[in-house]
Amino acid sequence: MGDVTAHYRRTFSNLLSQPRSRMKRYALGIDYGTNSCRSLLIDLDNGAEVGSTVFNYPSGEMGILLDPKDPHVARQNPQDYLDGLEAVTRGALQQAKEKIPGFEAAQVVGIGVDTTGSTPIPVNKDGTPLGLLPEFKGKLNAMVWLWKDHTGHAEAAEITKLGNEIRPNIMAKCGGIYSSEWFWSKILRLRRVDAQVFEAAYSFVEHCDWIPAVLTGDTNPLTLKRSVCAAGHKAMFSTEWGGLPDKEFLSKLDPKLADLRDRLYAEAHTTDTKVGGLCAAWAARLGLTEGTAVCVGAFDAHTGAVGAGIKEGTLVKILGTSTCDIMVSPTSKPLADIPGVCGIVNGSVLPGHYGIEAGQSAVGDLFLWLVNHLVPESYGKTVGEKFVAMEKAMEGQKPGATGLLALDWNNGNRTILVDVRLTGLLLGQTLHTQAHEIYRAYIEATAFGALTIIKRVEEYGVKIEEVINTGGLSIKNATLMQIYADIIGKPMKVSQSEQTCALGAAIFGAAAAGAGTWQDLQSKVTAVREKVYHPIPENVAIYAELYTLYRTLHDAFGSADWSGKLHHVMKQLLEIRGRQG
Amino acid sequence: MGDVTAHYRRTFSNLLSQPRSRMKRYALGIDYGTNSCRSLLIDLDNGAEVGSTVFNYPSGEMGILLDPKDPHVARQNPQDYLDGLEAVTRGALQQAKEKIPGFEAAQVVGIGVDTTGSTPIPVNKDGTPLGLLPEFKGKLNAMVWLWKDHTGHAEAAEITKLGNEIRPNIMAKCGGIYSSEWFWSKILRLRRVDAQVFEAAYSFVEHCDWIPAVLTGDTNPLTLKRSVCAAGHKAMFSTEWGGLPDKEFLSKLDPKLADLRDRLYAEAHTTDTKVGGLCAAWAARLGLTEGTAVCVGAFDAHTGAVGAGIKEGTLVKILGTSTCDIMVSPTSKPLADIPGVCGIVNGSVLPGHYGIEAGQSAVGDLFLWLVNHLVPESYGKTVGEKFVAMEKAMEGQKPGATGLLALDWNNGNRTILVDVRLTGLLLGQTLHTQAHEIYRAYIEATAFGALTIIKRVEEYGVKIEEVINTGGLSIKNATLMQIYADIIGKPMKVSQSEQTCALGAAIFGAAAAGAGTWQDLQSKVTAVREKVYHPIPENVAIYAELYTLYRTLHDAFGSADWSGKLHHVMKQLLEIRGRQG
Repeated sequence: MGDVTAHYRRTFSNLLSQPRSRMKRYALGIDYGTNSCRSLLIDLDNGAEVGSTVFNYPSGEMGILLDPKDPHVARQNPQDYLDGLEAVTRGALQQAKEKIPGFEAAQVVGIGVDTTGSTPIPVNKDGTPLGLLPEFKGKLNAMVWLWKDHTGHAEAAEITKLGNEIRPNIMAKCGGIYSSEWFWSKILRLRRVDAQVFEAAYSFVEHCDWIPAVLTGDTNPLTLKRSVCAAGHKAMFSTEWGGLPDKEFLSKLDPKLADLRDRLYAEAHTTDTKVGGLCAAWAARLGLTEGTAVCVGAFDAHTGAVGAGIKEGTLVKILGTSTCDIMVSPTSKPLADIPGVCGIVNGSVLPGHYGIEAGQSAVGDLFLWLVNHLVPESYGKTVGEKFVAMEKAMEGQKPGATGLLALDWNNGNRTILVDVRLTGLLLGQTLHTQAHEIYRAYIEATAFGALTIIKRVEEYGVKIEEVINTGGLSIKNATLMQIYADIIGKPMKVSQSEQTCALGAAIFGAAAAGAGTWQDLQSKVTAVREKVYHPIPENVAIYAELYTLYRTLHDAFGSADWSGKLHHVMKQLLEIRGRQG
Repeated sequence: MGDVTAHYRRTFSNLLSQPRSRMKRYALGIDYGTNSCRSLLIDLDNGAEVGSTVFNYPSGEMGILLDPKDPHVARQNPQDYLDGLEAVTRGALQQAKEKIPGFEAAQVVGIGVDTTGSTPIPVNKDGTPLGLLPEFKGKLNAMVWLWKDHTGHAEAAEITKLGNEIRPNIMAKCGGIYSSEWFWSKILRLRRVDAQVFEAAYSFVEHCDWIPAVLTGDTNPLTLKRSVCAAGHKAMFSTEWGGLPDKEFLSKLDPKLADLRDRLYAEAHTTDTKVGGLCAAWAARLGLTEGTAVCVGAFDAHTGAVGAGIKEGTLVKILGTSTCDIMVSPTSKPLADIPGVCGIVNGSVLPGHYGIEAGQSAVGDLFLWLVNHLVPESYGKTVGEKFVAMEKAMEGQKPGATGLLALDWNNGNRTILVDVRLTGLLLGQTLHTQAHEIYRAYIEATAFGALTIIKRVEEYGVKIEEVINTGGLSIKNATLMQIYADIIGKPMKVSQSEQTCALGAAIFGAAAAGAGTWQDLQSKVTAVREKVYHPIPENVAIYAELYTLYRTLHDAFGSADWSGKLHHVMKQLLEIRGRQG
């Protein structure tokens, strides 16, 4: 708490003590999410948000191109990214002009970009996405392959199998299991199902690398600056083994992948690296100054962690439709591989630190699924009303009183099982079970999943001294935050900014512009809120009992090695309900 | 099918060939359900229904007295039974008078009664229920203990333990496990929690025994005729061990129970036995003739089986809020004890036959729970509309296409696990799972539960050659009936009458009156419908795969002996969904 208050005081005093005469500097972060993109324009002295607008992708269903025949398909239209870029930048600038007398676009010194990932775009030799070319109009395979496209699950299993056989050192870095959400699974899948589009693709560029290339006016896929964040996490890139996986390995998957390697990249960069200056065409389109610094892109969770104030000993939890857990560890200390933790990448979050990424495949999405499909109107007319009524209904209820236990796997398990072919489970229903009790069970399940991740990284030497939460749920859902504190057993802090991803991108944009070191900038513009959720000891004790049962189900259904008994599970839940109900 | 047609033709020709001159005879069945009672007045020549009305119990919540502090409590007000008896009898007679010119109450020759059970009533020395006495007004423990009252679960476990230790022969007859829904569990529970009411109770009378006693004007608990159906199934009564369990056994549970044994009964009777003639007071109250034959009462499922046309080789499934499965086996053949099958009682269904009773604790209740708590209004405004819309939505869906698998244990498992301390389970949810898919999974789960019962009895030598279904679901829910046929792998026939319980009671009332043998009467007045649901071979094949997975979950969570692996369950469900989706 001392830290928080100090942080507040510092930020606040910065705000007041600003000499009015000196020319203020601003940085712009652009955050590309799953359904929309948004801008954040910040004052570099104090992090004050002077402009921020949102653009909902107009294509498909909430921005996602679906295939009614295959629920694994999730694609996007690259045109939405360009239209969104212009709209949200101009929107933020307009707000700044209205808010700040004398504000000028020239005061924006740097631009940073973050996106979802792995979200590779098949491009031609010029770096133009195939999806923008008339000949591929309406062809799903030529569009952007969104992170949550799971069509490559068989290919992921193939890569995992071959990798563990012949390149165990590479596989160890991604927890021993390569995901269907990642770069090579998607490319290999495309190769297998659509030779025409695969052949037309000269190269593949991550969404987060393509936007800075567009902004700086050079999209040549052979030379555009690639992000180490994307490369290291999703494309198995590491200087340890000379960049991307070797040709021998790739050719065993498919000879065409080995050929492709020459048309990808041999270098990757940290996010504080400058890609170049904003090109004239895009300067005009956005209403910014030509030459404004553009930094290397990164994945949203990673810039989000920076915007939330990540440092050694801090876990940043980004609570959204899915959840990303980000930690860092200085490269000066040895760090073991952590089984089931998807990505440990040098420089992916902060320069000079290993970035450690874990996550849960469905958190907000799980609650939205429940409220959209299984919550009657007796709770309210709208989704928002239903959530509020359910949270109110569960207020007086003690942990364990529902008798329910759930697994949070409706969208698979990203960490620590790294398996998309898992599904949900709900246990303990009676003829009296109500929707808000199921909602509570799913909140608890996501918290148990979060605790499982923390236990795993701590077991491998990464100590978590502080948890900072960010993302919509951390701000809107006090019930959830208290349950998380009680289950995880640590205080839950909440990031001050509601736009930590864009804020982190803006920090690096400013660093690339030479407006300060990223450390100084981060310290100036990030903070946590006064309200901290502290664990309630009696709840912690009950949840420890429930976690043991959760872990039994988790291992029973999630691990091929598990063998044992389950007869006690329903009995113990009833016994706990008897005590707590 | 040949049989069915013949049956129809016979019934129909009886109807036409009736000599108009001869005085018609009628019999009255009174069926006491969980929330209401109803009458059925039938023409004994052909089973034609000439009068039937319903009375909803006015007390408590839909006729059930609840305790907000304990979900296991389910009691009833005996006054509702008396008020209902008068209302439904007069209602049926009024309809008959309107329908049949010259109809006279004197043509009603016999009355039969069926009720839920075990539903014991604490009574004073006169046989008056304590719940009718002013000094016990509002006292839940003095009221009728409804079948689904589960407060005695600890006492049931105690009886089970002691019984298996010192009276294994008795326990073998109820599948080795004594239920909390039964006679002694409830009485022992009352003894433990409410000495005052227990001491005031001179004796205990089953609901089905009390009504015939009331009608014949002699409620002396020491002499009123007790039903072998209730006694044998729920009170561990058998001539094999000299009636009720011996005093030594009872005194080890509690010395007061041994004393009580002298104030219960030493004889029990089959349902074709005449209790006596209708007394003057009730003849006047009901509008019937004094002296009309009243037969011994029985449990609803048992008379229901008779009304549905049970015989050797037939399984009658009574599909209601819960489900009863009834079979019979002639006493001339040896019959082994069947583990987990709650009751095998000589004469409980048909004289000269062992009655075999199994069941599922929640079927209709499970669907009602779902629709009341978890189905949004997008399916419709009323419960009925929601069910219709969900059945329509699942029409085009193949077995296995939902990827879901459920256990039907929201109210525990009656057969073959005999364990109320089990709860529901739903597995296989994704972010796309919809309410009607969950409804289908629960229908399938109840069918898998039904198949588990059939497999168990067949394993012990009771061959099932025909399945006749009765109860609301069998008539209203064609989707469910087809899924049952596909999962059970046998044609599903449906009883002609919608009131088989009351019909069976009326048959025995007529037999007690000497209007014919029960065999002849049953053959004249029962039939099955033309529509038979035949198994669809390709669905049978898929469901066989799913049943293996169901059985794995069933054993894993339901059996203390099980030990094994579950990692394949979600994978195989996804694989099947991949083929069928």
